[in-house]
Amino acid sequence: MSIVLGPHQYGKAETRVVRIVRDTARHEITDLNVSSALRGRFDAAYLEGDQRSVLPTDTQKWTAYVWSKKVNPDPVERYGLALARHFVDGYEPVDAARIEIERYDWTRAVVGGVPHDHTFVRTGQEVRTAAITLEPAATHVVQGFKDLVVLKSTGSRFKDFLVDEYTLLQPTEDRVMATSLTARWRVTDPEDDVDWNAMYDEVKAVMLERFATLDSLALQQTLWHMGRAALEAFPRITEIRLVAPNKHHFPVDFSRFDEENANEVFNADDRPYGLIFASALRDDAPPAGDAWLAYTGLT
Amino acid sequence: MSIVLGPHQYGKAETRVVRIVRDTARHEITDLNVSSALRGRFDAAYLEGDQRSVLPTDTQKWTAYVWSKKVNPDPVERYGLALARHFVDGYEPVDAARIEIERYDWTRAVVGGVPHDHTFVRTGQEVRTAAITLEPAATHVVQGFKDLVVLKSTGSRFKDFLVDEYTLLQPTEDRVMATSLTARWRVTDPEDDVDWNAMYDEVKAVMLERFATLDSLALQQTLWHMGRAALEAFPRITEIRLVAPNKHHFPVDFSRFDEENANEVFNADDRPYGLIFASALRDDAPPAGDAWLAYTGLT
Amino acid sequence: MSIVLGPHQYGKAETRVVRIVRDTARHEITDLNVSSALRGRFDAAYLEGDQRSVLPTDTQKWTAYVWSKKVNPDPVERYGLALARHFVDGYEPVDAARIEIERYDWTRAVVGGVPHDHTFVRTGQEVRTAAITLEPAATHVVQGFKDLVVLKSTGSRFKDFLVDEYTLLQPTEDRVMATSLTARWRVTDPEDDVDWNAMYDEVKAVMLERFATLDSLALQQTLWHMGRAALEAFPRITEIRLVAPNKHHFPVDFSRFDEENANEVFNADDRPYGLIFASALRDDAPPAGDAWLAYTGLT
Amino acid sequence: MSIVLGPHQYGKAETRVVRIVRDTARHEITDLNVSSALRGRFDAAYLEGDQRSVLPTDTQKWTAYVWSKKVNPDPVERYGLALARHFVDGYEPVDAARIEIERYDWTRAVVGGVPHDHTFVRTGQEVRTAAITLEPAATHVVQGFKDLVVLKSTGSRFKDFLVDEYTLLQPTEDRVMATSLTARWRVTDPEDDVDWNAMYDEVKAVMLERFATLDSLALQQTLWHMGRAALEAFPRITEIRLVAPNKHHFPVDFSRFDEENANEVFNADDRPYGLIFASALRDDAPPAGDAWLAYTGLT
Repeated sequence: MSIVLGPHQYGKAETRVVRIVRDTARHEITDLNVSSALRGRFDAAYLEGDQRSVLPTDTQKWTAYVWSKKVNPDPVERYGLALARHFVDGYEPVDAARIEIERYDWTRAVVGGVPHDHTFVRTGQEVRTAAITLEPAATHVVQGFKDLVVLKSTGSRFKDFLVDEYTLLQPTEDRVMATSLTARWRVTDPEDDVDWNAMYDEVKAVMLERFATLDSLALQQTLWHMGRAALEAFPRITEIRLVAPNKHHFPVDFSRFDEENANEVFNADDRPYGLIFASALRDDAPPAGDAWLAYTGLT
Repeated sequence: MSIVLGPHQYGKAETRVVRIVRDTARHEITDLNVSSALRGRFDAAYLEGDQRSVLPTDTQKWTAYVWSKKVNPDPVERYGLALARHFVDGYEPVDAARIEIERYDWTRAVVGGVPHDHTFVRTGQEVRTAAITLEPAATHVVQGFKDLVVLKSTGSRFKDFLVDEYTLLQPTEDRVMATSLTARWRVTDPEDDVDWNAMYDEVKAVMLERFATLDSLALQQTLWHMGRAALEAFPRITEIRLVAPNKHHFPVDFSRFDEENANEVFNADDRPYGLIFASALRDDAPPAGDAWLAYTGLT
Repeated sequence: MSIVLGPHQYGKAETRVVRIVRDTARHEITDLNVSSALRGRFDAAYLEGDQRSVLPTDTQKWTAYVWSKKVNPDPVERYGLALARHFVDGYEPVDAARIEIERYDWTRAVVGGVPHDHTFVRTGQEVRTAAITLEPAATHVVQGFKDLVVLKSTGSRFKDFLVDEYTLLQPTEDRVMATSLTARWRVTDPEDDVDWNAMYDEVKAVMLERFATLDSLALQQTLWHMGRAALEAFPRITEIRLVAPNKHHFPVDFSRFDEENANEVFNADDRPYGLIFASALRDDAPPAGDAWLAYTGLT
Repeated sequence: MSIVLGPHQYGKAETRVVRIVRDTARHEITDLNVSSALRGRFDAAYLEGDQRSVLPTDTQKWTAYVWSKKVNPDPVERYGLALARHFVDGYEPVDAARIEIERYDWTRAVVGGVPHDHTFVRTGQEVRTAAITLEPAATHVVQGFKDLVVLKSTGSRFKDFLVDEYTLLQPTEDRVMATSLTARWRVTDPEDDVDWNAMYDEVKAVMLERFATLDSLALQQTLWHMGRAALEAFPRITEIRLVAPNKHHFPVDFSRFDEENANEVFNADDRPYGLIFASALRDDAPPAGDAWLAYTGLT
């Protein structure tokens, strides 16, 4: 019996790259949090402290900055692919690279009724995410978002569930359903002409529509239908994974007071919360490889 | 020499009240974080543990819920005033009440191109705030927002500053200026017919316009002009206070690389940050009393 | 009627200074988060963007670093006083300076049963704080801590409180009392020989003892007695302020289950929470001036 | 081609269970954040909204509370195993259960030099974690901690690394090395008599000793040696995984000032940071199954 080195990866996390395109008076802004991880033959660094094959994480930071100039970081997926390719092609011990990106959304301030040329307001609750994995067998782009907080004030029920000795929950025909949604969808070996921004907008729109219109019997069911709708809309997406905390909004009990509460006043609970994972995939989906092997956990 | 009780207040913080108006199929949602503090003759509770004058904080929680039904919590200022009035009028030892409210913004999900009746998405980076102080001499409403993140990618300079032995900063004619703005404006003894929601929208719009259009020599100057513009627009506002961390975006030094960085690639710094306080008031402003005496620090 | 500049201050927030004393093999570490604010005649910067009197916040950052070498930053109060003095004495428009410091606690790692010379572990939940205000009329040191989380599992009751139509709370003779305590105590015009570290340790110890031993009738009463005990122990302290969220631990209702819960199983609630402010001061306390006028809100 | 349900799990996250043992005047406290996930045949809930096999997450919450009374939750691993067993044995569709626990550390307040019977202070930066996976083929306990912040002020170098066109980093023979360590170690099919608390204390001690005493050539090397030391000390541990952000402490450049900085004054950087993953395992380690398949991400 002996002790051996197991899975490992290393890199630079959370380089905050802000890119302004200012070729005309009408500026554009791309605001990113970029992480890069290298996976490969770095055993000597771990076992003996031999750094000769190790590209410093500081160098990876500078690379992220410089490549945001070489390649327009909008869409982020193309920038991430270029960055991953740079690391895999240029450094002998690197077998695979993982680029993880958070993108923060800005919209133009409105001045005199007109969107302003160079003033922006941070908008959106959700953060757009991308995770690119470039490995020998395949290239995976996992596009997605997190922290999309949605709520429907009716059109959701929960009943006919399993009951045991610890079950106090009462069935309901009409409840508030709310979540802070994380969604990630995989495209493996994408063609060069994928319109990533259009895909992002449309997948989000399709899922929101399903959330709104499905008469929900459970959050599990809603998630499945949202995921399936995304796959139906985009043949290039082979798999989608959803994580949804059930942000409970329980009606406040007014029975002791002189007011009625007919599903009108709720407490927004912090903890605990139901936490549901769902996924949908095509039955002919190519292997995922390390597409889902996280680095920072941010994407 | 003896030791005496100094300033004190107590109450319930962060009651998460969500109010749905569902009188028709088109629901409305108001999402609040409500805190209430009582100020008055509670010495016996502190000095001797005598609770006979103490309205439990648990009771204050229930009151916040029930009053969100008695009074439509939109606009939040009217709801806060009613809640404060309830505590001051109804309980003998209460001399003054402070209600602090965070309001989270939701917009309707778009389904088939149409805003949906009962599905909402959390939007906005900024949080709207209100702090109502009802005291014997006056009633103060401090309306405001926090976490409004704004950035202009040009139209800002910083030069001709004081230089000492520790000054390494170089003057610049063109820099990125960004902040996460907190603004609070005071209305004392408001008339019943104030349109709080209109005031909120317009003050925010006016300040954003000044931020965008003023050719800035310093964040201090920008803040002063934003505040003054708000007071000019609304005679009822007697004072405004602004807190602005200077979220530094320094151009990344590319001098060692094969790329040029002409104010195109920036690092978004975390810490440290410049932190600027500014305020503007009318020279005939009525006394502020305890309008600025915070309870939770959230508003 | 005209609009005038109101209260203002500006400076650099959250410079993360780590100072290692390595004169011998046995190193010492002082880990600080330092903020400095200047208060004075900066009207021209606000009103006209004239920076000639403005010491850049970047310069204040470098000053904080260099002065951590000139003056040993342990105790932090002495370092803060020196930094404040530097700003007030050296720059004509500066009328007053405010230095706010968070200090993070490290203890030596134990290796082979012995505290190690140069390896440290971050310890302590609480953060030690200091706020120095140097103004024309006086010098104030506000020493303190925040985030000291304490709990007593018995020896606390709550009963005989005011009851109204919204009061559902039941009186109790035995409850868990827990809080995350913030305490700040003021020394005005301190002598040079104050042993700040000893004062800090002893005030904390005295207050913890009162928290533990007082048979509590309410959190208000407990706080008052903790504050009074600190003032009794240290004649130099003229005032103390305490902020305590009542971190509720409600017994979980087991009445529907086959187990008994005799104050044994609790839910630790997040929100809402009671929030209590208390203070004690000597009746001959010197004026506080701007000792309590916060800058960052961190101390 | 069709779309099928992929991996899924559901449960209740972050139930905040506080257990007081009060059989004598000397109370004991165990403070937990408990999450439970069920994995199994829940396809009907996702695909059709059929809840008949679904044990509500609300029921899982009550179960966590009640079982903290049935089974002493100290050590947490035994409690977690009992809870997992309850779910797997009692509910037909449940194939596997995952219990994730955060444990917060409290120590007794010292009163008159003596540890107090019923007053406690939250201590420790680190959070102890446990993740129990009970699946048909095996039972896995992953014990660990997170947020253990450690620093050595010398005894660390970084040099002889790969240099490319983006490498500006200078080699160093003496740097500060600091991290906020996450460690998790796996025991598969544990015997009933494992002393979990002793294992926890000793693994932490062994790893801290290696961190302190190894003359480090890189964080990668340090992590490997820490992990290997844990496996050498405990034959029952078959695998250990470490995640370590390199919390950079760069010496502040004093070259422009009238002071010297001989590795004495550092800036504690926030972002970006190097992020290193390492792991060590026995070459005869039993399969990990889903031992590393996270639920909340908290453990």
